[in-house]
Amino acid sequence: MVKKPAPDATRRSEKSRRAIYAAALALVAEAGYPRTTVEGIAARAGVGKQTIYRWWGSKADVLLEAFLDLGEQMARTAGQEASAVPDTGDLAADLKAVLRATIDELLDPRFEVPARSLAAEGLVNEQVGREFVTKLLEPQLQLYVDRLRSAQATGAVRADVDPRIALELFVSPLAQRWLQRTGPISHDYTDTLVDYALHGIAPR
Amino acid sequence: MVKKPAPDATRRSEKSRRAIYAAALALVAEAGYPRTTVEGIAARAGVGKQTIYRWWGSKADVLLEAFLDLGEQMARTAGQEASAVPDTGDLAADLKAVLRATIDELLDPRFEVPARSLAAEGLVNEQVGREFVTKLLEPQLQLYVDRLRSAQATGAVRADVDPRIALELFVSPLAQRWLQRTGPISHDYTDTLVDYALHGIAPR
Repeated sequence: MVKKPAPDATRRSEKSRRAIYAAALALVAEAGYPRTTVEGIAARAGVGKQTIYRWWGSKADVLLEAFLDLGEQMARTAGQEASAVPDTGDLAADLKAVLRATIDELLDPRFEVPARSLAAEGLVNEQVGREFVTKLLEPQLQLYVDRLRSAQATGAVRADVDPRIALELFVSPLAQRWLQRTGPISHDYTDTLVDYALHGIAPR
Repeated sequence: MVKKPAPDATRRSEKSRRAIYAAALALVAEAGYPRTTVEGIAARAGVGKQTIYRWWGSKADVLLEAFLDLGEQMARTAGQEASAVPDTGDLAADLKAVLRATIDELLDPRFEVPARSLAAEGLVNEQVGREFVTKLLEPQLQLYVDRLRSAQATGAVRADVDPRIALELFVSPLAQRWLQRTGPISHDYTDTLVDYALHGIAPR
Protein backbone atom coordinates (compact mmCIF):
# COMPACT_ATOMS: atom_id res chain seq x y z
CA MET A 1 0.00 0.00 0.00
CA VAL A 2 1.37 3.40 -0.99
CA LYS A 3 1.41 5.80 1.90
CA LYS A 4 -0.28 9.08 1.03
CA PRO A 5 0.97 12.18 2.87
CA ALA A 6 -1.46 13.40 5.51
CA PRO A 7 -3.36 16.56 4.40
CA ASP A 8 -1.54 18.55 7.09
CA ALA A 9 1.89 17.55 5.75
CA THR A 10 0.94 18.58 2.19
CA ARG A 11 -0.29 21.92 3.42
CA ARG A 12 2.86 22.36 5.46
CA SER A 13 5.14 21.60 2.53
CA GLU A 14 3.19 23.93 0.20
CA LYS A 15 3.59 26.63 2.84
CA SER A 16 7.38 26.00 2.99
CA ARG A 17 7.63 26.16 -0.77
CA ARG A 18 5.89 29.57 -0.83
CA ALA A 19 8.12 30.83 2.01
CA ILE A 20 11.22 29.68 0.12
CA TYR A 21 10.13 31.40 -3.11
CA ALA A 22 9.44 34.63 -1.24
CA ALA A 23 12.77 34.48 0.61
CA ALA A 24 14.71 33.80 -2.60
CA LEU A 25 13.11 36.71 -4.47
CA ALA A 26 13.56 39.10 -1.53
CA LEU A 27 17.21 38.16 -1.06
CA VAL A 28 18.22 38.45 -4.71
CA ALA A 29 16.49 41.85 -4.84
CA GLU A 30 18.30 43.10 -1.73
CA ALA A 31 21.73 41.56 -2.05
CA GLY A 32 22.08 40.70 -5.75
CA TYR A 33 22.60 37.25 -7.21
CA PRO A 34 26.25 36.66 -6.22
CA ARG A 35 25.57 37.29 -2.51
CA THR A 36 22.38 35.20 -2.40
CA THR A 37 23.04 31.74 -0.95
CA VAL A 38 20.97 28.62 -0.28
CA GLU A 39 21.86 29.08 3.43
CA GLY A 40 20.54 32.64 3.36
CA ILE A 41 17.32 31.61 1.62
CA ALA A 42 16.79 28.79 4.16
CA ALA A 43 17.40 31.09 7.14
CA ARG A 44 15.01 33.74 5.83
CA ALA A 45 12.32 31.17 4.98
CA GLY A 46 12.65 29.55 8.41
CA VAL A 47 13.47 26.09 7.01
CA GLY A 48 16.53 23.88 7.11
CA LYS A 49 19.05 23.96 4.26
CA GLN A 50 18.26 20.30 3.61
CA THR A 51 14.62 21.16 2.87
CA ILE A 52 15.81 23.30 -0.03
CA TYR A 53 18.26 20.70 -1.34
CA ARG A 54 15.50 18.06 -1.17
CA TRP A 55 13.53 20.01 -3.82
CA TRP A 56 16.13 21.94 -5.83
CA GLY A 57 19.68 21.43 -7.05
CA SER A 58 21.01 24.99 -6.68
CA LYS A 59 20.11 28.58 -5.90
CA ALA A 60 19.66 29.20 -9.64
CA ASP A 61 16.97 26.47 -9.73
CA VAL A 62 15.13 27.95 -6.74
CA LEU A 63 15.17 31.41 -8.27
CA LEU A 64 14.01 30.34 -11.71
CA GLU A 65 11.07 28.45 -10.19
CA ALA A 66 10.26 31.34 -7.86
CA PHE A 67 10.06 33.57 -10.94
CA LEU A 68 7.90 31.20 -12.91
CA ASP A 69 5.55 31.02 -9.95
CA LEU A 70 5.52 34.82 -9.51
CA GLY A 71 4.70 35.31 -13.19
CA GLU A 72 1.80 32.85 -12.97
CA GLN A 73 0.45 34.47 -9.81
CA MET A 74 0.61 37.95 -11.35
CA ALA A 75 -1.14 36.76 -14.50
CA ARG A 76 -3.89 35.15 -12.40
CA THR A 77 -4.30 38.32 -10.34
CA ALA A 78 -4.72 40.27 -13.58
CA GLY A 79 -7.33 37.73 -14.70
CA GLN A 80 -5.21 36.42 -17.56
CA GLU A 81 -4.09 33.08 -18.86
CA ALA A 82 -0.27 33.03 -18.66
CA SER A 83 0.07 30.23 -21.17
CA ALA A 84 -1.17 31.81 -24.40
CA VAL A 85 -1.47 35.03 -26.38
CA PRO A 86 -5.23 35.55 -26.96
CA ASP A 87 -6.55 34.86 -30.46
CA THR A 88 -9.65 36.97 -31.10
CA GLY A 89 -8.89 37.17 -34.82
CA ASP A 90 -7.59 40.76 -34.45
CA LEU A 91 -3.80 40.38 -34.34
CA ALA A 92 -2.99 44.01 -33.50
CA ALA A 93 -5.50 44.05 -30.61
CA ASP A 94 -4.24 40.72 -29.23
CA LEU A 95 -0.58 41.76 -29.29
CA LYS A 96 -1.38 45.15 -27.76
CA ALA A 97 -3.36 43.52 -24.92
CA VAL A 98 -0.51 41.17 -23.98
CA LEU A 99 2.12 43.89 -24.18
CA ARG A 100 0.00 46.22 -22.02
CA ALA A 101 -0.19 43.47 -19.38
CA THR A 102 3.58 43.01 -19.65
CA ILE A 103 4.10 46.75 -19.03
CA ASP A 104 2.02 46.48 -15.85
CA GLU A 105 4.14 43.51 -14.70
CA LEU A 106 7.47 45.23 -15.48
CA LEU A 107 6.41 48.32 -13.54
CA ASP A 108 5.49 46.22 -10.46
CA PRO A 109 8.37 46.42 -7.94
CA ARG A 110 7.66 42.85 -6.68
CA PHE A 111 8.74 41.68 -10.11
CA GLU A 112 11.10 44.44 -11.20
CA VAL A 113 13.85 44.35 -8.61
CA PRO A 114 14.54 40.59 -8.53
CA ALA A 115 14.08 40.27 -12.32
CA ARG A 116 16.68 42.97 -12.90
CA SER A 117 19.18 41.27 -10.53
CA LEU A 118 18.75 37.93 -12.25
CA ALA A 119 19.03 39.50 -15.72
CA ALA A 120 22.22 41.36 -14.72
CA GLU A 121 23.79 38.12 -13.50
CA GLY A 122 22.75 36.46 -16.76
CA LEU A 123 24.75 38.98 -18.78
CA VAL A 124 28.07 38.08 -17.17
CA ASN A 125 27.42 34.50 -15.98
CA GLU A 126 26.77 32.55 -19.16
CA GLN A 127 25.25 29.51 -17.41
CA VAL A 128 22.72 31.55 -15.44
CA GLY A 129 21.99 33.56 -18.59
CA ARG A 130 21.28 30.46 -20.63
CA GLU A 131 19.02 28.94 -17.95
CA PHE A 132 17.18 32.24 -17.61
CA VAL A 133 16.60 32.37 -21.38
CA THR A 134 15.77 28.68 -21.88
CA LYS A 135 13.44 28.23 -18.92
CA LEU A 136 11.88 31.67 -18.52
CA LEU A 137 12.19 33.89 -21.58
CA GLU A 138 12.03 31.52 -24.55
CA PRO A 139 8.82 29.72 -23.48
CA GLN A 140 7.13 33.14 -23.26
CA LEU A 141 8.44 34.15 -26.68
CA GLN A 142 7.12 30.89 -28.16
CA LEU A 143 3.59 32.06 -27.25
CA TYR A 144 4.11 34.96 -29.67
CA VAL A 145 5.48 32.56 -32.30
CA ASP A 146 2.27 30.50 -32.00
CA ARG A 147 0.07 33.60 -32.37
CA LEU A 148 2.04 34.87 -35.38
CA ARG A 149 1.81 31.41 -37.02
CA SER A 150 -1.97 31.44 -36.62
CA ALA A 151 -1.96 34.96 -38.15
CA GLN A 152 0.01 33.59 -41.09
CA ALA A 153 -2.67 30.91 -41.54
CA THR A 154 -5.37 33.60 -41.83
CA GLY A 155 -3.24 35.92 -43.99
CA ALA A 156 -2.75 38.66 -41.37
CA VAL A 157 1.03 38.12 -41.51
CA ARG A 158 2.97 37.40 -44.70
CA ALA A 159 3.88 33.75 -45.23
CA ASP A 160 7.58 34.53 -45.88
CA VAL A 161 8.04 36.18 -42.44
CA ASP A 162 10.03 34.31 -39.76
CA PRO A 163 7.80 34.56 -36.65
CA ARG A 164 10.72 34.08 -34.23
CA ILE A 165 12.43 37.18 -35.66
CA ALA A 166 9.20 39.15 -36.21
CA LEU A 167 8.21 39.04 -32.52
CA GLU A 168 11.47 40.79 -31.62
CA LEU A 169 10.25 43.95 -33.37
CA PHE A 170 7.87 44.62 -30.48
CA VAL A 171 9.31 42.51 -27.63
CA SER A 172 12.98 43.60 -27.77
CA PRO A 173 12.41 47.39 -27.78
CA LEU A 174 10.35 47.02 -24.61
CA ALA A 175 12.97 44.71 -23.06
CA GLN A 176 15.78 47.15 -23.81
CA ARG A 177 13.92 50.23 -22.51
CA TRP A 178 13.07 48.38 -19.33
CA LEU A 179 16.44 46.68 -18.73
CA GLN A 180 18.78 49.48 -19.78
CA ARG A 181 16.46 52.38 -18.91
CA THR A 182 16.84 53.86 -22.40
CA GLY A 183 13.38 55.41 -22.36
CA PRO A 184 9.97 55.48 -20.67
CA ILE A 185 7.60 52.51 -21.11
CA SER A 186 3.81 52.84 -21.36
CA HIS A 187 0.76 51.34 -23.07
CA ASP A 188 1.01 54.01 -25.80
CA TYR A 189 4.60 53.02 -26.45
CA THR A 190 3.88 49.30 -26.93
CA ASP A 191 0.77 50.09 -29.03
CA THR A 192 3.04 52.13 -31.33
CA LEU A 193 5.58 49.30 -31.57
CA VAL A 194 2.85 46.87 -32.67
CA ASP A 195 1.59 49.29 -35.34
CA TYR A 196 5.11 49.92 -36.71
CA ALA A 197 5.94 46.19 -36.69
CA LEU A 198 2.78 45.21 -38.53
CA HIS A 199 2.78 47.95 -41.15
CA GLY A 200 6.39 49.14 -41.31
CA ILE A 201 7.76 52.66 -41.20
CA ALA A 202 8.02 53.11 -45.00
CA PRO A 203 5.05 54.52 -46.94
CA ARG A 204 2.44 51.83 -47.71
CA MET B 1 53.32 84.02 -23.25
CA VAL B 2 51.46 80.74 -22.99
CA LYS B 3 53.79 77.83 -22.33
CA LYS B 4 53.23 74.99 -24.79
CA PRO B 5 54.03 71.49 -23.54
CA ALA B 6 57.23 70.05 -25.02
CA PRO B 7 56.51 67.44 -27.75
CA ASP B 8 57.99 64.73 -25.51
CA ALA B 9 55.63 65.50 -22.63
CA THR B 10 52.59 65.41 -24.95
CA ARG B 11 53.64 62.05 -26.34
CA ARG B 12 54.25 60.74 -22.85
CA SER B 13 50.83 61.80 -21.61
CA GLU B 14 49.08 60.41 -24.71
CA LYS B 15 50.92 57.13 -24.04
CA SER B 16 49.73 57.13 -20.39
CA ARG B 17 46.18 57.81 -21.47
CA ARG B 18 46.24 54.83 -23.87
CA ALA B 19 47.77 52.60 -21.15
CA ILE B 20 45.05 53.68 -18.69
CA TYR B 21 42.27 52.95 -21.19
CA ALA B 22 43.71 49.51 -21.92
CA ALA B 23 44.14 48.72 -18.21
CA ALA B 24 40.59 49.81 -17.38
CA LEU B 25 39.04 47.70 -20.16
CA ALA B 26 41.15 44.65 -19.29
CA LEU B 27 40.34 44.88 -15.58
CA VAL B 28 36.58 45.28 -15.99
CA ALA B 29 36.60 42.32 -18.38
CA GLU B 30 38.53 40.11 -15.96
CA ALA B 31 37.16 41.15 -12.58
CA GLY B 32 33.79 42.78 -13.35
CA TYR B 33 32.83 46.35 -12.58
CA PRO B 34 32.42 46.12 -8.78
CA ARG B 35 35.97 44.76 -8.27
CA THR B 36 37.60 47.23 -10.66
CA THR B 37 39.22 50.13 -8.75
CA VAL B 38 41.13 53.29 -9.69
CA GLU B 39 44.09 51.83 -7.73
CA GLY B 40 43.95 48.62 -9.78
CA ILE B 41 43.79 50.52 -13.06
CA ALA B 42 46.74 52.72 -12.03
CA ALA B 43 48.88 49.73 -10.99
CA ARG B 44 48.18 47.86 -14.23
CA ALA B 45 48.81 50.94 -16.38
CA GLY B 46 52.07 51.64 -14.52
CA VAL B 47 51.04 55.15 -13.46
CA GLY B 48 50.32 56.79 -10.12
CA LYS B 49 46.75 56.98 -8.82
CA GLN B 50 47.06 60.78 -8.93
CA THR B 51 47.63 60.69 -12.68
CA ILE B 52 44.19 59.13 -13.09
CA TYR B 53 42.49 61.56 -10.70
CA ARG B 54 44.12 64.47 -12.55
CA TRP B 55 42.16 63.51 -15.68
CA TRP B 56 39.02 61.75 -14.45
CA GLY B 57 36.63 61.97 -11.51
CA SER B 58 35.89 58.27 -11.00
CA LYS B 59 36.36 54.76 -12.39
CA ALA B 60 33.05 55.13 -14.22
CA ASP B 61 34.42 58.19 -16.06
CA VAL B 62 37.62 56.36 -17.05
CA LEU B 63 35.65 53.38 -18.35
CA LEU B 64 33.14 55.39 -20.34
CA GLU B 65 35.95 57.32 -22.06
CA ALA B 66 37.91 54.14 -22.67
CA PHE B 67 34.82 52.74 -24.41
CA LEU B 68 34.23 55.82 -26.52
CA ASP B 69 37.86 55.66 -27.61
CA LEU B 70 37.66 51.92 -28.36
CA GLY B 71 34.55 52.44 -30.48
CA GLU B 72 36.24 55.21 -32.46
CA GLN B 73 39.37 53.13 -32.99
CA MET B 74 37.36 50.12 -34.18
CA ALA B 75 35.34 52.29 -36.56
CA ARG B 76 38.56 53.79 -37.98
CA THR B 77 40.08 50.32 -38.38
CA ALA B 78 36.96 49.29 -40.33
CA GLY B 79 37.37 52.41 -42.50
CA GLN B 80 34.16 54.01 -41.24
CA GLU B 81 33.14 57.34 -39.89
CA ALA B 82 31.88 56.74 -36.31
CA SER B 83 29.92 59.97 -36.21
CA ALA B 84 27.18 59.40 -38.81
CA VAL B 85 24.99 56.81 -40.50
CA PRO B 86 25.81 57.04 -44.25
CA ASP B 87 23.25 58.73 -46.48
CA THR B 88 23.52 57.36 -50.03
CA GLY B 89 19.81 57.94 -50.65
CA ASP B 90 19.08 54.19 -50.18
CA LEU B 91 17.78 53.93 -46.61
CA ALA B 92 17.67 50.12 -46.44
CA ALA B 93 21.25 49.79 -47.75
CA ASP B 94 22.55 52.46 -45.35
CA LEU B 95 20.93 50.89 -42.29
CA LYS B 96 22.10 47.41 -43.28
CA ALA B 97 25.69 48.62 -43.73
CA VAL B 98 25.84 50.21 -40.27
CA LEU B 99 24.21 47.21 -38.58
CA ARG B 100 26.62 44.80 -40.31
CA ALA B 101 29.53 46.84 -38.95
CA THR B 102 27.90 46.76 -35.49
CA ILE B 103 27.66 42.95 -35.68
CA ASP B 104 31.40 42.79 -36.42
CA GLU B 105 32.11 45.01 -33.40
CA LEU B 106 29.85 43.04 -31.04
CA LEU B 107 31.52 39.79 -32.07
CA ASP B 108 35.00 41.21 -31.35
CA PRO B 109 36.17 39.97 -27.91
CA ARG B 110 38.15 43.20 -27.29
CA PHE B 111 34.79 44.96 -27.22
CA GLU B 112 32.45 42.22 -26.09
CA VAL B 113 33.77 41.25 -22.68
CA PRO B 114 34.18 44.72 -21.15
CA ALA B 115 30.96 46.00 -22.78
CA ARG B 116 29.01 43.13 -21.25
CA SER B 117 30.48 43.81 -17.77
CA LEU B 118 29.61 47.49 -17.97
CA ALA B 119 26.09 46.75 -19.27
CA ALA B 120 25.50 44.23 -16.45
CA GLU B 121 26.52 46.81 -13.84
CA GLY B 122 24.23 49.33 -15.52
CA LEU B 123 21.21 47.05 -14.97
CA VAL B 124 21.56 47.01 -11.18
CA ASN B 125 23.46 50.27 -10.54
CA GLU B 126 21.12 52.98 -11.77
CA GLN B 127 23.76 55.75 -11.80
CA VAL B 128 26.21 53.74 -13.92
CA GLY B 129 23.32 52.66 -16.15
CA ARG B 130 22.20 56.24 -16.77
CA GLU B 131 25.75 57.42 -17.54
CA PHE B 132 26.25 54.46 -19.89
CA VAL B 133 23.03 55.32 -21.72
CA THR B 134 23.48 59.12 -21.78
CA LYS B 135 27.13 59.22 -22.78
CA LEU B 136 27.56 56.07 -24.87
CA LEU B 137 24.32 54.60 -26.16
CA GLU B 138 22.03 57.60 -26.78
CA PRO B 139 24.54 59.59 -28.90
CA GLN B 140 24.83 56.52 -31.17
CA LEU B 141 21.06 56.15 -31.38
CA GLN B 142 20.75 59.83 -32.34
CA LEU B 143 22.74 59.06 -35.50
CA TYR B 144 19.86 56.76 -36.54
CA VAL B 145 17.34 59.47 -35.63
CA ASP B 146 19.17 61.89 -37.96
CA ARG B 147 19.20 59.35 -40.81
CA LEU B 148 15.48 58.53 -40.36
CA ARG B 149 14.63 62.26 -40.33
CA SER B 150 16.44 62.75 -43.62
CA ALA B 151 14.48 59.73 -44.96
CA GLN B 152 11.26 61.42 -43.85
CA ALA B 153 12.31 64.53 -45.81
CA THR B 154 12.67 62.44 -48.99
CA GLY B 155 9.51 60.40 -48.33
CA ALA B 156 11.28 57.07 -47.64
CA VAL B 157 9.79 57.02 -44.12
CA ARG B 158 6.25 58.15 -43.28
CA ALA B 159 6.00 61.63 -41.79
CA ASP B 160 3.88 60.44 -38.83
CA VAL B 161 6.55 57.97 -37.61
CA ASP B 162 8.52 58.82 -34.44
CA PRO B 163 12.17 58.20 -35.48
CA ARG B 164 13.34 57.63 -31.88
CA ILE B 165 10.89 54.71 -31.54
CA ALA B 166 11.32 53.47 -35.12
CA LEU B 167 15.06 52.86 -34.74
CA GLU B 168 14.35 50.45 -31.88
CA LEU B 169 12.73 48.03 -34.34
CA PHE B 170 16.16 47.08 -35.68
CA VAL B 171 18.54 48.22 -32.89
CA SER B 172 16.83 46.62 -29.86
CA PRO B 173 16.44 43.08 -31.26
CA LEU B 174 20.17 43.01 -31.97
CA ALA B 175 20.95 44.45 -28.51
CA GLN B 176 18.79 41.83 -26.79
CA ARG B 177 20.19 38.87 -28.76
CA TRP B 178 23.70 40.03 -28.00
CA LEU B 179 23.23 40.99 -24.34
CA GLN B 180 20.93 38.17 -23.22
CA ARG B 181 22.16 35.56 -25.71
CA THR B 182 18.59 34.92 -26.90
CA GLY B 183 19.72 33.95 -30.40
CA PRO B 184 22.53 34.04 -32.96
CA ILE B 185 23.52 37.36 -34.57
CA SER B 186 24.69 37.70 -38.17
CA HIS B 187 24.55 40.04 -41.18
CA ASP B 188 21.54 38.07 -42.52
CA TYR B 189 19.73 38.61 -39.24
CA THR B 190 20.17 42.41 -39.19
CA ASP B 191 19.32 42.64 -42.92
CA THR B 192 16.04 40.86 -42.12
CA LEU B 193 15.30 43.24 -39.23
CA VAL B 194 15.73 46.25 -41.52
CA ASP B 195 13.39 44.77 -44.15
CA TYR B 196 10.70 43.93 -41.56
CA ALA B 197 11.02 47.36 -39.91
CA LEU B 198 10.71 49.24 -43.19
CA HIS B 199 7.88 47.23 -44.74
CA GLY B 200 6.16 45.55 -41.77
CA ILE B 201 5.16 41.92 -41.34
CA ALA B 202 1.53 42.35 -42.50
CA PRO B 203 0.67 41.95 -46.20
CA ARG B 204 1.40 45.12 -48.20
